[in-house]
Amino acid sequence: MPTRTLHLNAFLMGVGHHEAAWRHPRTEPARLNDVRHYQQLARIAERGRLDSLFLADGLALQGDVRHNAIGGLEPLTLLSALAAVTDRIGLIATVSTTYNEPFHVARKFASLDHISGGRAGWNIVTSAGEAEAHNFGTERPAHADRYARATEFLEVVTGLWDGWEDGAVVGDRRAGVYADTGRIHALDHDGAHFRVRGPLTTSRPPQGHPLLVQAGSSEDGKEFAARHAEAVFTAQQTLAGAREFYADLKGRLARYGRHGDELLVLPGISPIIGSTEREALRLEKELEDLVIPAYGLAQLSNMTGIELSHDDLDRPLPDVPVETEGAQSRRKLVIDLARRENLTVRQLLSRLAGGRGHRVVAGTPEQIADEIQAWFTGGAADGFNIMPPVLPGGLEDFVDHVVPELQIRGLFRTEYEGRTLREHYGLARPASRHARPAAAGRLETAVAS
Amino acid sequence: MPTRTLHLNAFLMGVGHHEAAWRHPRTEPARLNDVRHYQQLARIAERGRLDSLFLADGLALQGDVRHNAIGGLEPLTLLSALAAVTDRIGLIATVSTTYNEPFHVARKFASLDHISGGRAGWNIVTSAGEAEAHNFGTERPAHADRYARATEFLEVVTGLWDGWEDGAVVGDRRAGVYADTGRIHALDHDGAHFRVRGPLTTSRPPQGHPLLVQAGSSEDGKEFAARHAEAVFTAQQTLAGAREFYADLKGRLARYGRHGDELLVLPGISPIIGSTEREALRLEKELEDLVIPAYGLAQLSNMTGIELSHDDLDRPLPDVPVETEGAQSRRKLVIDLARRENLTVRQLLSRLAGGRGHRVVAGTPEQIADEIQAWFTGGAADGFNIMPPVLPGGLEDFVDHVVPELQIRGLFRTEYEGRTLREHYGLARPASRHARPAAAGRLETAVAS
Repeated sequence: MPTRTLHLNAFLMGVGHHEAAWRHPRTEPARLNDVRHYQQLARIAERGRLDSLFLADGLALQGDVRHNAIGGLEPLTLLSALAAVTDRIGLIATVSTTYNEPFHVARKFASLDHISGGRAGWNIVTSAGEAEAHNFGTERPAHADRYARATEFLEVVTGLWDGWEDGAVVGDRRAGVYADTGRIHALDHDGAHFRVRGPLTTSRPPQGHPLLVQAGSSEDGKEFAARHAEAVFTAQQTLAGAREFYADLKGRLARYGRHGDELLVLPGISPIIGSTEREALRLEKELEDLVIPAYGLAQLSNMTGIELSHDDLDRPLPDVPVETEGAQSRRKLVIDLARRENLTVRQLLSRLAGGRGHRVVAGTPEQIADEIQAWFTGGAADGFNIMPPVLPGGLEDFVDHVVPELQIRGLFRTEYEGRTLREHYGLARPASRHARPAAAGRLETAVAS
Repeated sequence: MPTRTLHLNAFLMGVGHHEAAWRHPRTEPARLNDVRHYQQLARIAERGRLDSLFLADGLALQGDVRHNAIGGLEPLTLLSALAAVTDRIGLIATVSTTYNEPFHVARKFASLDHISGGRAGWNIVTSAGEAEAHNFGTERPAHADRYARATEFLEVVTGLWDGWEDGAVVGDRRAGVYADTGRIHALDHDGAHFRVRGPLTTSRPPQGHPLLVQAGSSEDGKEFAARHAEAVFTAQQTLAGAREFYADLKGRLARYGRHGDELLVLPGISPIIGSTEREALRLEKELEDLVIPAYGLAQLSNMTGIELSHDDLDRPLPDVPVETEGAQSRRKLVIDLARRENLTVRQLLSRLAGGRGHRVVAGTPEQIADEIQAWFTGGAADGFNIMPPVLPGGLEDFVDHVVPELQIRGLFRTEYEGRTLREHYGLARPASRHARPAAAGRLETAVAS
């Protein structure tokens, strides 16, 4: 039995990750704004002993809502409602550093961590798009600026979380001392992007810091991850590419004084599951047949920066050199995929419909488990970001059929051992930057008394 | 039986509104960050058929945390967790317009409204304090600027909520039409404070607009309320003062084309309840004896703008003319109270310890009900903002003993009749500004066909 444990995150996305999910009989599109849908998903994922669940986000209505069930709930408000109906599973929300204030973000995640008993995680993103910028009265920021702001944003947020030391709340009713104010620290941050005095209004989160997650795979993104992130979600199409990414990212940690096991790499996988391979392929085909090409074309144009029309469908992807300020790594992935496999635009659309560039694997539970095992033991992954094509059914299939197979193989836990998200991921709880070593603390007390 | 129905809101505040609540044996200060405490309170309030519960907020740690149990959870994250364990009660969160972006706020309240099935309310505040400004890298804004920003903020937020018309989501799987994009509108707001394109990422909230609540009683505050608010929380010490405020505010509605019953006035009341009057007075005395004068002095100095020390305790409030940019109406209320009743600073502190300027009434359930009835039928209130001195016990006392008395008198509902917060408050659901009148719509269709 291997000593390494696989980590599994349920990536929740409306009624499914496949862009035609909402048209398939296994979904109900009216569930998109129904909290009970997400509560059901959270309970299913917890029943499967998954480490965490995760909600993506964007600050503008992106994609054509005429042809897809998009436009759902805001992640942080939703996660609190999921915390209330679960006990163990980690809860990861995407929040952008671009159009937010670090004081608000620190506070909301501290609250969610208290509310969930130490199960909060923050997927740190920057906002690249023009549509997002226009909802905040500004123009899209340059790539490097976004990451410079994100880095300072992180400094402020972690500084605010550290401001209340563990044990700052004393609660001594008799003496009338609620908090030891010597252990609550202002931040007095004064930087290029932010001036924040602090302290936070909320005491230290149960996890010290809610888990820090990151998903950008550009050069700046990887460097940011190596410095700050504890888990990374990534889109990888091939085992070779995933290995390269994994080694690259882990190799960057040392320059920030970090070890390889302080950051987990979780590639996305959309498992299309059938009792037989034929059944899985049939479901894949059903979804493919429901795709609306206009929707995918617009998405692909947006991803690649290449203006595409129906006339391009049966040709290869035009060879237009483009530079976008947006999600650079996803653009590269998509163009590489088209070139490597010599795909027409129509074929490429069908490859992207399942997971927007993430890997799609159709097969039996054993075949899915084989793929997971091969990547996990092959130096490509510490775990996976599970992206069911249809929800809730696809998550149920995964939990009821793939998870047991992984458990039988000794790759995945059969019970939660920890209570916090950090404990599930095997990551240490950070000490406050103000915490004094215990020995020094005792000495001071001795001198003072 | 009167046809007017009383409206009752449970104002939740840590382990109680009395500043010494955390030291009293009826509370447990460790509950301050425990979501189960607030879930228990929400269930108690719902058992009492109260219209709503409400969370105050500030964007800085205000008051001396050494001597009081302050520094709790963030309201919006907390309310989602309360929505998950309740079915009917309204959920009102305080969010400032000063250091927020309207796109975020519109989205979060739209989400909370979806999550709660139409039970969200927004207590709109502006942030006056220096401490808050310093958490956002700026200096405190001038009073008038705060309200100008708030007014434009409201325009943007309500505009975003209106952007998705009712029925914009079609969900026609066969035709492949998820939404009728002709009924989803960009906002294209371009004002002095904000430029926001829209549309929102979230479809129209179940209530159309979450309920708009306001609590400032300055001249600007009252004018803002008359224009936008549907419920107003206010601190009133005397029946005469409350009547004057009530008539003043209702009188302002006409100039915005509104009727008197489109805005409810809810003065605060902290009920100290005993089976006998003696028992109530004993509880009041117990709390008073636990007060830490240094805490109250600092609060009073902050409220009035007058620097006070222990030496001032047994003198009248110094007659220093002061102007603050902060909460002007609360300052006036406190100074008026001291002058009117000729109080020493120590006496004033004891009068403020229970409700920070809100009215405190100690007595039997019948006596509390008498006070409520007198104000309700005397042109001073449409309902009350209930501020229990200790929590959860003080809310239980109110729900189990005062509410039944109000029900017997025919003043308060015995069952919820509606499902949404607006329905509890008897307020109409606003139509989207883009909604076409049904008749005109039919005509257009006829002409077009």
